[in-house]
Amino acid sequence: MRTRPLKVALLGCGVVGSEVARIMTTHADDLAARIGAPVELVGVAVRRPSKVREGIDPALITTDATALVQRGDIDVVVEVIGGIEPARTLITTAFENGASVVSANKALLAEDGAALHAAAEKYGRDLYYEAAVAGAIPLVRPLRESLAGDKVNRVLGIVNGTTNFILDKMDTSGAGYSEALDEATALGYAEADPTADVEGFDAAAKAAILAGIAFHTRVKIGDVHREGITEVTAADIASARRMGCTVKLLAICERAADGQSVTARVHPAMIPLSHPLASVREAYNAVFVEAEAAGQLMFYGPGAGGSPTASAVLGDLVAVCRNKLGEATGPGESTYTRLPVSPMGEVVTRYHISLDVADKPGVLAQVATVFAEQGVSIDTVRQQGKDGEASLVVVTHRAPDAALSGTVEALRKLDTVRGVASIMRVEGE
Amino acid sequence: MRTRPLKVALLGCGVVGSEVARIMTTHADDLAARIGAPVELVGVAVRRPSKVREGIDPALITTDATALVQRGDIDVVVEVIGGIEPARTLITTAFENGASVVSANKALLAEDGAALHAAAEKYGRDLYYEAAVAGAIPLVRPLRESLAGDKVNRVLGIVNGTTNFILDKMDTSGAGYSEALDEATALGYAEADPTADVEGFDAAAKAAILAGIAFHTRVKIGDVHREGITEVTAADIASARRMGCTVKLLAICERAADGQSVTARVHPAMIPLSHPLASVREAYNAVFVEAEAAGQLMFYGPGAGGSPTASAVLGDLVAVCRNKLGEATGPGESTYTRLPVSPMGEVVTRYHISLDVADKPGVLAQVATVFAEQGVSIDTVRQQGKDGEASLVVVTHRAPDAALSGTVEALRKLDTVRGVASIMRVEGE
Repeated sequence: MRTRPLKVALLGCGVVGSEVARIMTTHADDLAARIGAPVELVGVAVRRPSKVREGIDPALITTDATALVQRGDIDVVVEVIGGIEPARTLITTAFENGASVVSANKALLAEDGAALHAAAEKYGRDLYYEAAVAGAIPLVRPLRESLAGDKVNRVLGIVNGTTNFILDKMDTSGAGYSEALDEATALGYAEADPTADVEGFDAAAKAAILAGIAFHTRVKIGDVHREGITEVTAADIASARRMGCTVKLLAICERAADGQSVTARVHPAMIPLSHPLASVREAYNAVFVEAEAAGQLMFYGPGAGGSPTASAVLGDLVAVCRNKLGEATGPGESTYTRLPVSPMGEVVTRYHISLDVADKPGVLAQVATVFAEQGVSIDTVRQQGKDGEASLVVVTHRAPDAALSGTVEALRKLDTVRGVASIMRVEGE
Repeated sequence: MRTRPLKVALLGCGVVGSEVARIMTTHADDLAARIGAPVELVGVAVRRPSKVREGIDPALITTDATALVQRGDIDVVVEVIGGIEPARTLITTAFENGASVVSANKALLAEDGAALHAAAEKYGRDLYYEAAVAGAIPLVRPLRESLAGDKVNRVLGIVNGTTNFILDKMDTSGAGYSEALDEATALGYAEADPTADVEGFDAAAKAAILAGIAFHTRVKIGDVHREGITEVTAADIASARRMGCTVKLLAICERAADGQSVTARVHPAMIPLSHPLASVREAYNAVFVEAEAAGQLMFYGPGAGGSPTASAVLGDLVAVCRNKLGEATGPGESTYTRLPVSPMGEVVTRYHISLDVADKPGVLAQVATVFAEQGVSIDTVRQQGKDGEASLVVVTHRAPDAALSGTVEALRKLDTVRGVASIMRVEGE
């Protein structure tokens, strides 16, 4: 074994960073044995240097992240500060100055992954980011490497723990959205400002990363259709139950039937209780992958948290250090298929629509006519009437999203339709 | 991209090999783009050259596998013939002659992995074998690489599709073992001679491979305690149901509580219906991994079959070819912890014991005394009597396997115990 240590700089020392530093110390011998050389933490860039950080030598702490990555003797930079800047500039500077990078930064990778990968390739460095998607669950490496000889057609996953906790709570307790969010906040599953989670931004970033890797093409977060869970009601969940379904916030990446384009989207959807994703509880994550030869695979585990995310970061650190020692680099970005990302209107799926309608003869015929005119075929209709008001629950066969939007627009114009109470896609069948 | 192709030799052209050859042809462009160079199948060694093999150029077929691996210009040898010899000699010869190896041979790796890894290292070649464990499910790579910065404490999995199909059939239909085996055979899930599957040899080989990788130590198939499913009865399954459990053939690899040894075993066990492994149906496989930082991860998918296994082989082929191009090698065998493998007697778990006893006062007291004398603490007892005969079902707290064996031996000596109807371990709680 080489005795001269590989030098690691840590950018960020919050929940994940402090755990990375801790494990690097407590498991130093194991890491050294697995890498073939010891690793040494030589600097930790933080914003608040005065904060007490147990187990970290205060001499390593600096507020000058730029100077740290410019030292020139760093082998690997671990970036766990998140956000676009200064992370982007620091990572690029690290590449320029001889370091490979391990990052957990989903927002940055989904926004500007192409430039980062290009910089890594230009300087002959590694850019690894297993921790950016679904915490400790090995997903980036299985997609990039294990399935490199296969053709992935679909990725369907629960990739945000906060929203899964909220929806699971609504499902099991009958609580409304606000009540469930309050509980998630109280238990630390939701942040004070939960926007990134509940509006689907976090899941959309992960969907972009997963779609890019799965289909060997470039997908940015802006290419991902995004709907959050803030409008999911207790009535939606109850309606899902009546259909033998539950509601999950899903990230769905698909190759079009003709293979010439891909789609990526994040939205709440009903899935059958018999689907493996339906039983993913609390803040757990799980991702279903459908590949041509492999068939259906599922990866399940904790999708967030300091320790699980640190586990993914350290797995990457070991790989990048091994590559450094072998003077090699791992697989870089693979976007050779150059498949375009189609808009949401071209996505084909099923829909569950609740309508408030007048309780009089002929309403169903009118509604059915609208669906037929838009080319959306109806699978089932359930009609409930009371006191001159009635509700119609329509479940469709598979149809393009644009056709469904057209249908809903036309339905709203009918005098007999008082309102469209909810529209939810049905997946996983 | 390099235009000179990497040369691949295929040893074996059965269910897996023919699928590997087919995908190499149909997906040649994708493989080339992902590797960075085209791959060319330059020879296929078979036993029966006269068999028609659709899509394979007859000029590539040879019966002289030794000459093929000795050519000297082969970059990667794919070994899918299985068994110990001639596979072992051919792989070693391939290393000597400049080739890296992708193998799906669990029996060989579990028997003689150390020598193969040593040969690979000596000649600077890769030895990859994702397909040897759980078919298409990425497991070897996640354990070897994704979790390389973590400490795995436990691997618990369903790694044999045939036995899972049989036990699932017994569970859902109430069928006995023979009837379920007949159905598995008729449907092609069990081979004409099902011994390797139903007696647990196949699962034991996989357990040895998984334990070695997970704990960074050397575990051979002979170190794995092995019990098959041939003695599982419909009554066992019914009894499991009454406890809210189902019966699965599990491969269990554990680090001892003191961290100084490991155990590896394969046997039928009761697991709670709420455990994710309980819902693994038909011939699917799934593996639970518990790691210190990552927490609980699960990997699920098809554990066998031509296409899924070919997917795993081709993922390895891409990785090994990339390494060849970069003049690097992937991670080799990691056995630095040198942890001993403890015998089954030291495994600590819970037990479900059915006893046929005389239906008279004082029997329970006698039985309970035996458990107490052996230091095995009882959790619950269920007593059923009819016509002078009675049965006692005892579920214990956690105890060493040796203590349980001692208890059973002592129970058999009691006059009031007519027989020990079944003993089954209880896992996954």
